[in-house]
Amino acid sequence: MNTTAKILAVLALLQCLPAFADSPKASRPKGKDTPSFEQILSESKLGEWRRPDPENLLVMRLPSGRVVMEVDPAYAPLHVANIRTLVRERYFDGLAIVRVQDDFVAEWQDPEADNGGDRRKLRSLGSAKATLPPEFTRPIARSLPWMNLPDGDFYAPQVGFSDDLPAARDPAKNETWLVHCYGTFAVGRDNPTDSGNGSDLYVAIGEAPRRLDRNLTVLGRVVAGMDKLSALPRGHGPLGFYARPKERTPILSIRIAADLPPAQRPNLEILRTDSPTFQRLLKASRERHDAFYVTPPGKVDVCAVPVPVRELSEP
Amino acid sequence: MNTTAKILAVLALLQCLPAFADSPKASRPKGKDTPSFEQILSESKLGEWRRPDPENLLVMRLPSGRVVMEVDPAYAPLHVANIRTLVRERYFDGLAIVRVQDDFVAEWQDPEADNGGDRRKLRSLGSAKATLPPEFTRPIARSLPWMNLPDGDFYAPQVGFSDDLPAARDPAKNETWLVHCYGTFAVGRDNPTDSGNGSDLYVAIGEAPRRLDRNLTVLGRVVAGMDKLSALPRGHGPLGFYARPKERTPILSIRIAADLPPAQRPNLEILRTDSPTFQRLLKASRERHDAFYVTPPGKVDVCAVPVPVRELSEP
Repeated sequence: MNTTAKILAVLALLQCLPAFADSPKASRPKGKDTPSFEQILSESKLGEWRRPDPENLLVMRLPSGRVVMEVDPAYAPLHVANIRTLVRERYFDGLAIVRVQDDFVAEWQDPEADNGGDRRKLRSLGSAKATLPPEFTRPIARSLPWMNLPDGDFYAPQVGFSDDLPAARDPAKNETWLVHCYGTFAVGRDNPTDSGNGSDLYVAIGEAPRRLDRNLTVLGRVVAGMDKLSALPRGHGPLGFYARPKERTPILSIRIAADLPPAQRPNLEILRTDSPTFQRLLKASRERHDAFYVTPPGKVDVCAVPVPVRELSEP
Repeated sequence: MNTTAKILAVLALLQCLPAFADSPKASRPKGKDTPSFEQILSESKLGEWRRPDPENLLVMRLPSGRVVMEVDPAYAPLHVANIRTLVRERYFDGLAIVRVQDDFVAEWQDPEADNGGDRRKLRSLGSAKATLPPEFTRPIARSLPWMNLPDGDFYAPQVGFSDDLPAARDPAKNETWLVHCYGTFAVGRDNPTDSGNGSDLYVAIGEAPRRLDRNLTVLGRVVAGMDKLSALPRGHGPLGFYARPKERTPILSIRIAADLPPAQRPNLEILRTDSPTFQRLLKASRERHDAFYVTPPGKVDVCAVPVPVRELSEP
């Protein structure tokens, strides 16, 4: 890494790791204090970070900038394939973020599909499928990596990380699924469980909506530009849909990173959750005691330590 | 209630209860389905709602509108008294929201107190105290009501509601405290635990930062206008402080509702957490199964069902 890249990386770390930053007005801990997240990350090794497959990165351009989502075909193969088709046929370009419900979700789709729209004017799905079997859970399998979080969970029998995403397991039912944390990226649907096709997508922007787990198909999570969604004006129609069309945020385009010229691809690295550095972060969160924190939480929740992302440069 | 008030109340319910609204693209459940939150609330009785004491409502005016916080002197008597002094001496008028850290907090204070400021120019605290003993926890007492949540908690031995605020208890230590959920309103401080005085205040705008529990003095929560804080542009300096002063949001004024002319006071009612209707909401969240939800969460987290607020009219 050259100096500029290093500086950008540090800046990106500070920006991408909100939950890692210190508390209101905390100072940096010293001496025997629990090391800060910045300190732990600064001691990480190059091999502890992975570069996401550009086939799995969706790059959404909004007037305010860029949002990048990483999707995981291992958990939602049919939905990821359908979304790639939609993206490559330019389905999303010119659609809009139609719903921002405070403490819940930012959602985008064809505006004509929301309650105020005219369904006869719906954009064609092209060669993408209109319905898909739900991918709410998958059978537990060796092909799905598992890094167990020993702290346990309020909702699920087991939680941990899989493909560096927060996940859960129910061994009695032989099921595993990606869980809804802040920043989770998933597929909206109508009532029939097969009505999701990837043309209606949402990101969780508030308290982890764990009640959605196993009821919706989770694709992955936002890995850059989260505040381009979380700071959007809230909709004040029912369910947070915008009452007036002009309040919607237009989507300039969505592209798969692999389809972009190399210089325009996001230059991201994601910390591996099976790395010693990620384990140190979990431990520091669980046991945190320093000049500021007098009472450690004693436990770490699966959503409490977002997996670190660093951006080496921004196109 | 006249018709206009009823309409306003319904609108306010739809706006103030984000976590109660249905899931991405859900339809209203029918028949034997779990009743929707809107349905349950529409069947509430007048006596199940309380009017907050106007001495306990702080009304913050921002250029975008009004944010209302309810504080609870039972949990933080010294801090609430000091904040009332600061408010009545107009300490906050003309200060600013100086920090909005994504998925964490929106915080306001004297801009000269942040890292980019000149501490010699700090505004005088007037007759308010500069330091206060921490009020992180209180001894369990009969004077502090307790509505136990039987679902349990990930972090604390017991959770429930006290004065209609999410709260926790540790009987072994004879301690009780208000917990950090989305919308929690609390006191920022420096490292010394007695350095909080109420001149530096924050609201949680992301995933419940439960690691702050018992480390900071919680005052209460936002009861109206939450999205005036949660949708603010994020700061991109360290810890989410704004890098440039012009990015800050000015605070036009903070007033105690009791000091406003009656016509300008917020006209709010808060659902009592010991009411049958609130119990029905908890049950519906825990067991939710309807045309949309195929797998109920089975449990309800203390932060998962924000206590309903209805606004009968807006000044």
